[in-house]
Amino acid sequence: MSPDRLKALFGIYRDGLLADTLPFWVRNAIDRTHGGYITALDRDGSVLQTDKPIWVHGRFAWLLATLYATVDRREEWLSLSKHGIDFLNRHAFDTDGRMFFSVTREGRPLRKRRYLFSEAFAVIGLSAYGAASGESRYMDQALELFRLILRYHREPGLLEPKVIPATRQMKGLAMPMILIATAQELRKAVHDPLCDAIIDESIREIERDFVKPDLACVLETVGPNGEFYDTFEGRQVCPGHSIEAGWFILEEARVRGGDPNLIRLGTRIIDWSMAIGWDATYGGVPYFIDARGLPPTEYSHDLKLWWPHNETIIGTLLAWQLTRD
Amino acid sequence: MSPDRLKALFGIYRDGLLADTLPFWVRNAIDRTHGGYITALDRDGSVLQTDKPIWVHGRFAWLLATLYATVDRREEWLSLSKHGIDFLNRHAFDTDGRMFFSVTREGRPLRKRRYLFSEAFAVIGLSAYGAASGESRYMDQALELFRLILRYHREPGLLEPKVIPATRQMKGLAMPMILIATAQELRKAVHDPLCDAIIDESIREIERDFVKPDLACVLETVGPNGEFYDTFEGRQVCPGHSIEAGWFILEEARVRGGDPNLIRLGTRIIDWSMAIGWDATYGGVPYFIDARGLPPTEYSHDLKLWWPHNETIIGTLLAWQLTRD
Repeated sequence: MSPDRLKALFGIYRDGLLADTLPFWVRNAIDRTHGGYITALDRDGSVLQTDKPIWVHGRFAWLLATLYATVDRREEWLSLSKHGIDFLNRHAFDTDGRMFFSVTREGRPLRKRRYLFSEAFAVIGLSAYGAASGESRYMDQALELFRLILRYHREPGLLEPKVIPATRQMKGLAMPMILIATAQELRKAVHDPLCDAIIDESIREIERDFVKPDLACVLETVGPNGEFYDTFEGRQVCPGHSIEAGWFILEEARVRGGDPNLIRLGTRIIDWSMAIGWDATYGGVPYFIDARGLPPTEYSHDLKLWWPHNETIIGTLLAWQLTRD
Repeated sequence: MSPDRLKALFGIYRDGLLADTLPFWVRNAIDRTHGGYITALDRDGSVLQTDKPIWVHGRFAWLLATLYATVDRREEWLSLSKHGIDFLNRHAFDTDGRMFFSVTREGRPLRKRRYLFSEAFAVIGLSAYGAASGESRYMDQALELFRLILRYHREPGLLEPKVIPATRQMKGLAMPMILIATAQELRKAVHDPLCDAIIDESIREIERDFVKPDLACVLETVGPNGEFYDTFEGRQVCPGHSIEAGWFILEEARVRGGDPNLIRLGTRIIDWSMAIGWDATYGGVPYFIDARGLPPTEYSHDLKLWWPHNETIIGTLLAWQLTRD
């Protein structure tokens, strides 16, 4: 890639974020009455519903604090990050320490799910806000919440499985993948050996159980020891997801000074995901692909959503940075 | 509609069912080894997965027995209906009397859900098979299972609600709608006043709580007393679903000798659903529409699936039969 081309690309992404995306959300998403963020917005910024999803609170708080720490020390960004963190701490935690999935505008709980993603995104938000503000109690809370995630993830019976485990046990790519990214963000705030240990363990699990050389892809769902299930769910590949896993691993390679094994694994995942996932006719990455080329059942399988394309941009750019290929 | 046009249409639907659809499924879907039906089939009849959904067992058993009773007394149809009923009775019931959502090919339970549709479709299958075969124990079982559905539907706390009820209570169109059709099919086998009572009650509930004259549509989800929630879920209209509700009501009008109030209600529902749901540019009925014309969030909202079009054919043809309009 020529330096000019690279400079042009960085300009597109920087301005897209700082001059377009971020001003829209800062202008329209802050709930000054009840706290937190209202994120169901139409293109003109008008509100489509006021129910508040918890995931996006952790994620937006993370973004704002990360921009403060890495781009520009604007007090507005730090205080809007705290605005989301405060809402989470006031309304998003159930009595068992777990978190809700969505709450009303005022913060009354609507749904709680059997997944740990509300908690994972709260960890990254708390970590980034704690590190940016220097307030150690948020970093401590992030570490404590991360330990709670690990306990619920590891101890059988704490979360109700979707499929009756006496008949069939399954596990998803999403958990080891999100544990990598969560531990990476937590590590920026908290120096605890747990972070590296979980990152190592999660990368090993993905490589051992989800990456399938014979199918040249990364599966979304496998048995507890990586068993391939020849069902719609067992054959499902989500290229955007696996590219995301690939760049989390490349990010770890970068942090560790260009670890060649991690570069090899991360680029292989991205190469395979692009080979199976990129639409050669019209371009773009569809939502789901069947690993054996059979018809998927998800109605949305051939939609091209925005986020897999963001993952692809990040993943391929990071791969280029590490390999110059 | 001219008699020639009507004759041509009946030919299309009759031959589509008896000469095309049905032979495909009878040839490819019968599991001679483990019983029941394998219904995840590719266009050439090859198997895409062997896990068995329970809904379709009740529905296919119903279809086969209904064809036997109303079209032609072919022993094959009756025995293939029993083939599905036997699988349900061997493998689909949990120890609490409720039914699973899916099982393995051998019949081991995979999923159980918090909805009562496996049970409702088993009732129509048992009713139709019982009536067609004359074996009263299947009719008795159908009535008993119908009573179980009503108990679980009515008694708070027996089924876990999706949304925390202390914060917000909601109910869906699907249950009163399916109770009408289930009771109509049960009534053909069992002469119990419960059937008419549930049909009356369900039609009243739909008219009172889900049909919204000010929005000129039928909502999918409302509060316990028909309250409108101005959220994505509360604004959701599923035209295929509401047309289906409309023709269940028209079918009741037909059974009751052309009841003018039911004809008025059923045709109004179909008219409104077509007005909000029909795509004036390309034709066809999309999956979901927002009652206020705002963007829906379901990825699949603008897909045109096969089944809403079947509902539309049945609904408009039945409306024509009853009104000659």
